[in-house]
Amino acid sequence: MTATAPVVLAIDAMSGDHGLNMAVDAALSVLAEFPVLQLILVGDQDQISAALKARKPAAETLLRISLQHASEVVAMDESPSRALRGKKDSSMRVAINLVRDGRAHAVVSAGNTGALMATAKFVLKTLKGIDRPAMISPIPSMNGHVHMLDLGANAECNAEQLFQFAVMGSALVTAIYDIPRPKVALLNIGEEEIKGNDVIKQSAQLLQASTLNYVGFIEGDGVFLRDVDVVVCDGFTGNIALKTGEGVAKLIYHFIKQEFTRSMFTKMAALAAMPALKALGKRMDPRNYNGASFVGVNGIVIKSHGSADAQAFAAAIRVALREVENDVPSRIARLLADALPERAPDAKLA
Amino acid sequence: MTATAPVVLAIDAMSGDHGLNMAVDAALSVLAEFPVLQLILVGDQDQISAALKARKPAAETLLRISLQHASEVVAMDESPSRALRGKKDSSMRVAINLVRDGRAHAVVSAGNTGALMATAKFVLKTLKGIDRPAMISPIPSMNGHVHMLDLGANAECNAEQLFQFAVMGSALVTAIYDIPRPKVALLNIGEEEIKGNDVIKQSAQLLQASTLNYVGFIEGDGVFLRDVDVVVCDGFTGNIALKTGEGVAKLIYHFIKQEFTRSMFTKMAALAAMPALKALGKRMDPRNYNGASFVGVNGIVIKSHGSADAQAFAAAIRVALREVENDVPSRIARLLADALPERAPDAKLA
Repeated sequence: MTATAPVVLAIDAMSGDHGLNMAVDAALSVLAEFPVLQLILVGDQDQISAALKARKPAAETLLRISLQHASEVVAMDESPSRALRGKKDSSMRVAINLVRDGRAHAVVSAGNTGALMATAKFVLKTLKGIDRPAMISPIPSMNGHVHMLDLGANAECNAEQLFQFAVMGSALVTAIYDIPRPKVALLNIGEEEIKGNDVIKQSAQLLQASTLNYVGFIEGDGVFLRDVDVVVCDGFTGNIALKTGEGVAKLIYHFIKQEFTRSMFTKMAALAAMPALKALGKRMDPRNYNGASFVGVNGIVIKSHGSADAQAFAAAIRVALREVENDVPSRIARLLADALPERAPDAKLA
Repeated sequence: MTATAPVVLAIDAMSGDHGLNMAVDAALSVLAEFPVLQLILVGDQDQISAALKARKPAAETLLRISLQHASEVVAMDESPSRALRGKKDSSMRVAINLVRDGRAHAVVSAGNTGALMATAKFVLKTLKGIDRPAMISPIPSMNGHVHMLDLGANAECNAEQLFQFAVMGSALVTAIYDIPRPKVALLNIGEEEIKGNDVIKQSAQLLQASTLNYVGFIEGDGVFLRDVDVVVCDGFTGNIALKTGEGVAKLIYHFIKQEFTRSMFTKMAALAAMPALKALGKRMDPRNYNGASFVGVNGIVIKSHGSADAQAFAAAIRVALREVENDVPSRIARLLADALPERAPDAKLA
């Protein structure tokens, strides 16, 4: 893709806890930021039109927005199978169809994770050699950031699937950051080889025997403190770790506020400390890390946090743009072809 | 126990990454703090004597210390079964024996978690109705703190075991804090009933049918932000959550330091902000939360973080003292007897 070709993103405008207005605000903000961008807003056409008109965007901006009607919305607590079978005209499904049909380079949704994964998998199909797609996202760490997967798409995984996650995570980091051999670690409750359950131990064996740059087990604190590029875990553990991290960050933010408003003296100190505190707040703000990629499907699907506000949703749209510009799925597919066929089919663990 | 009767604690003085000197420093510090305390230091008698002499404690302090020789030490990476079978004269084993024999009210060790659990279970036996003991500890939250279990003793658990953890956690909080019906939540990757794996769902059913004050699922961020007293999970998830929290706290501490040393101006602001920053540092310091209880065994066994320094190990000794003063195991046993027999044996899930 040349620098001047537009990047077209399909936006599930009805998704998330805050719905339409949040999505439209985010859309207008990223369009202003990136002239290369064109957006297809998917959902109830009348409602989207009304929300757009109310914001009086410039004609130049409107030229880069198109609408795609969808009559249904997947509820946040709807079962993935019901959404998949029963809501074929949902904003989520129609947005994903646009990627399948080549009308959009990527899709961004803040909808129901399970439904988004099931629909993406059904419509776009998985890459060759991949059983299950996974959710991956950069999270802040001592060295800048680390990519972790799976973050909640697959609650239970076998060793072979964890191995595939490692391959995909490594490929994604190579594709986006041009790191030739990313350091891959397996999340565990200890760094010694005897620690962990059978799935973890089997998965470690597969990784040791692979061509990946596998560096061994990592503990929960090591994710944020050690120098690794990719951390692999099942979706249950990944989701708990991610949300625990968010909870602790919010708790500490609350402590900071309490300590700096305790007395007249600390309030004055807070004024003096404001630039540092603001910079800190920005680095701690989970909204800036919003936007997880579904790796393993034929296409770019970005999942925003369901509770995202416009600022957080805009961050997720930026992730989609970056993946399109780096041609991530094709590069992952090529790297997968290199990494996976070496393993004989009988080497698979059930 | 009356206020004047001494509390005798057995200290595994050879345990942890920092070993003997750390343990002796911590011992002297808590003896100075609590006149009610007497300590039995367990380990290599000559080494402990030498370490004590080097610190020149007052005669009054020495009168409250006794030594118990043990010729072996359990290594931090030793397998629990090897430690149990092969090291019958380890400092860990001898310290636990002191509790069994009624010579100490509780034991504190910074040793290998698996070995400590296996030995405590073997020597002290589990409480009636309990399959597996669990590790529980208070962790800081928006409402002060929340007790979470299991923190790493049982990597895999079935629904019945998670239920038993809930009963024990609830009983411990009642015993220590006099909260009659603690709010119990189950850690999961979503709050909706359809979320989670089969074990979690079955466990939720057992909890709903119980007399406990069960409030439903809780997510990773909710642990720190919501108003609950007990959070139940398997040891794998609990350990990952706990260490993730520690990692994020350390990362944010690092960010704070970076932001306040960025320029002359922010350094001066840091001076003004020092009282607030120091108070914050104290609240964030994981050393102050060190000391997990093994609930479910006949006796008080406190596990310190392996990497504990003297300050952190002293915190773990304080936890032991508090549990002795609140007569925690007998109260848990009574509360268990109330909560468990209601359930018919055939209601057990394999």
